[in-house]
Amino acid sequence: MGTVPRFGENGLVARITKEFRTQNPSTVKGIGNDSSVINNIDRLTLVSTDMLLEGIHFDLTYFPLKHLGYKCVIRAISDIYAMNGNPNQLLVGIGASSRFQAEAIEEIYVGIKLGCEKYGVDLVGGDITGSLTGLAITVTAVGSVENESLVTREGARVNDLICVTGDLGGAYIGLQILEREKKIFEKNSGIQPDLSGSDYVLRRQLKPEIPLDILGKLKDKDILPTAMIDLTNGLATDLMQLCGASGVGCKIFPDRIPIDSETSRFAEDFHIEPLIPALNGGDDFEMLFTVPVTMHEKLSGIKGVSIIGHITEKEEGLRIVGDDGTNVELDAPGW
Amino acid sequence: MGTVPRFGENGLVARITKEFRTQNPSTVKGIGNDSSVINNIDRLTLVSTDMLLEGIHFDLTYFPLKHLGYKCVIRAISDIYAMNGNPNQLLVGIGASSRFQAEAIEEIYVGIKLGCEKYGVDLVGGDITGSLTGLAITVTAVGSVENESLVTREGARVNDLICVTGDLGGAYIGLQILEREKKIFEKNSGIQPDLSGSDYVLRRQLKPEIPLDILGKLKDKDILPTAMIDLTNGLATDLMQLCGASGVGCKIFPDRIPIDSETSRFAEDFHIEPLIPALNGGDDFEMLFTVPVTMHEKLSGIKGVSIIGHITEKEEGLRIVGDDGTNVELDAPGW
Repeated sequence: MGTVPRFGENGLVARITKEFRTQNPSTVKGIGNDSSVINNIDRLTLVSTDMLLEGIHFDLTYFPLKHLGYKCVIRAISDIYAMNGNPNQLLVGIGASSRFQAEAIEEIYVGIKLGCEKYGVDLVGGDITGSLTGLAITVTAVGSVENESLVTREGARVNDLICVTGDLGGAYIGLQILEREKKIFEKNSGIQPDLSGSDYVLRRQLKPEIPLDILGKLKDKDILPTAMIDLTNGLATDLMQLCGASGVGCKIFPDRIPIDSETSRFAEDFHIEPLIPALNGGDDFEMLFTVPVTMHEKLSGIKGVSIIGHITEKEEGLRIVGDDGTNVELDAPGW
Repeated sequence: MGTVPRFGENGLVARITKEFRTQNPSTVKGIGNDSSVINNIDRLTLVSTDMLLEGIHFDLTYFPLKHLGYKCVIRAISDIYAMNGNPNQLLVGIGASSRFQAEAIEEIYVGIKLGCEKYGVDLVGGDITGSLTGLAITVTAVGSVENESLVTREGARVNDLICVTGDLGGAYIGLQILEREKKIFEKNSGIQPDLSGSDYVLRRQLKPEIPLDILGKLKDKDILPTAMIDLTNGLATDLMQLCGASGVGCKIFPDRIPIDSETSRFAEDFHIEPLIPALNGGDDFEMLFTVPVTMHEKLSGIKGVSIIGHITEKEEGLRIVGDDGTNVELDAPGW
């Protein structure tokens, strides 16, 4: 440890972040002290951190820096919404190799600023450091929630309905299209990328959003989920996490898993069964949650919520039950 | 974004972190949810995050992984102590290339555990991800402080005494010794490293500690600093930060800057004026703080605190005034 800053990183942070305005009364001190100071007196504090590394989590060949900054904000605050909280503060650390000029860092921060403004989040920490290779970004989100509104992964109970917001698999298909065009471009740089008709899935990958409208409607109708997790690793993995934390099993019905028509169409182009990206794709930033079965009627009036199954006893395992009588165990890569 | 975990990272985190016990009543939920949940009712919440990248912030040729884990804890919590708060929670994210086996990650966590136990901090977030090259570590510390005890960088006033804890420059000299032995080893791997007589400076680099005893004595004597910052970038840079944030100038006296005899001796071996590592070395994890001049007597009884100068009007600038009448402007690399 011990490093001489390149292009005066502290100065660069100060210059970039002076455009940021704080919006939350809970933000007491932002950038410019050893730590940020947050006043969550009366409320629980939520803290989540993510590390994003070039070549692992993103590919700058097709991922614009501004979008990357925006998506980092979404990624961080999604974890706070998944606890049924509200994000209020964000801390960002960037490690960048000499390949990146100050303008590139500023471009990332343009996206961060857009995300902060859209979701009412204050940037309270910023750090820029050198890196030997590529770009590394760390985002820490801080939020708050009233004690009685906290939702964890641990509260799902037998017979609870399993719900997801929005539709799934789009971000993965968007990524496949970008990867395909990258390969074509690498072979022949004269060919322009063919992204026609893929607006929706590309947006799902490059500019995801939090399903705020649906979360708002749940609150309006006094529906407090018994458990919740954000869908960032794919439905299969995230459902396994939720069931594992709650000590329960589940039964889900594949025909109830919401998949957009554009996702299905491109999946078929790629000779992929559309259910696969929905189950294993990740990066959808939708919410997976459970509610007591008594909420069924209340839920049915909310557009954008799909009931995809229900919670079972732990011993029954995690099952996918098809219309045709198939009944297979849920499996996820990396587990 | 979107990555298939290597060696089931979630499982590895779960396995490693099950050895960790939480100790703070403010820790409501630790690892295993989308975000950690902290109860800082009645107190302000402090959050600080640091990113440490291999080859920039540490060199694994001579930095043992266990020590690296420990130092990451120190680095993170030092920022919380610098606000006069107490650290309570820690979140760690690790990105590791295929060069690192699970055992290496576990070794880092052994050091993290030691640090957490020593300083009473709960690990509440852990994440392991792949990396294309090398090792990247993100540490986020969360702490709390009573409203009236908060100390920022912004409160230094004209005539305040400028104080530092411990002694300075040792960590830098320790690093120079390690770098020297690395170069010798690279030329001839048959030669064993010569680290004799350098216990103190090596410990300053490889296993730094927070000056808890001194911070405790300040509290015992009801000495609330007007401003404080931790010494991680070197006295010159950190003093410039503090004075800049407070809108003041300063005058410091080089002969009052505390330097350990081992630091001085090795500095001379390296043909470095001992004052240089003290001013610019960094990584000392001592505290730089200011107190009203009326505290002079109270302070003088505290071992390990050196009064190195005083705060002046902003217009007077930042000056180093020697015994011999020299009067030069304070300068810091990277500014």
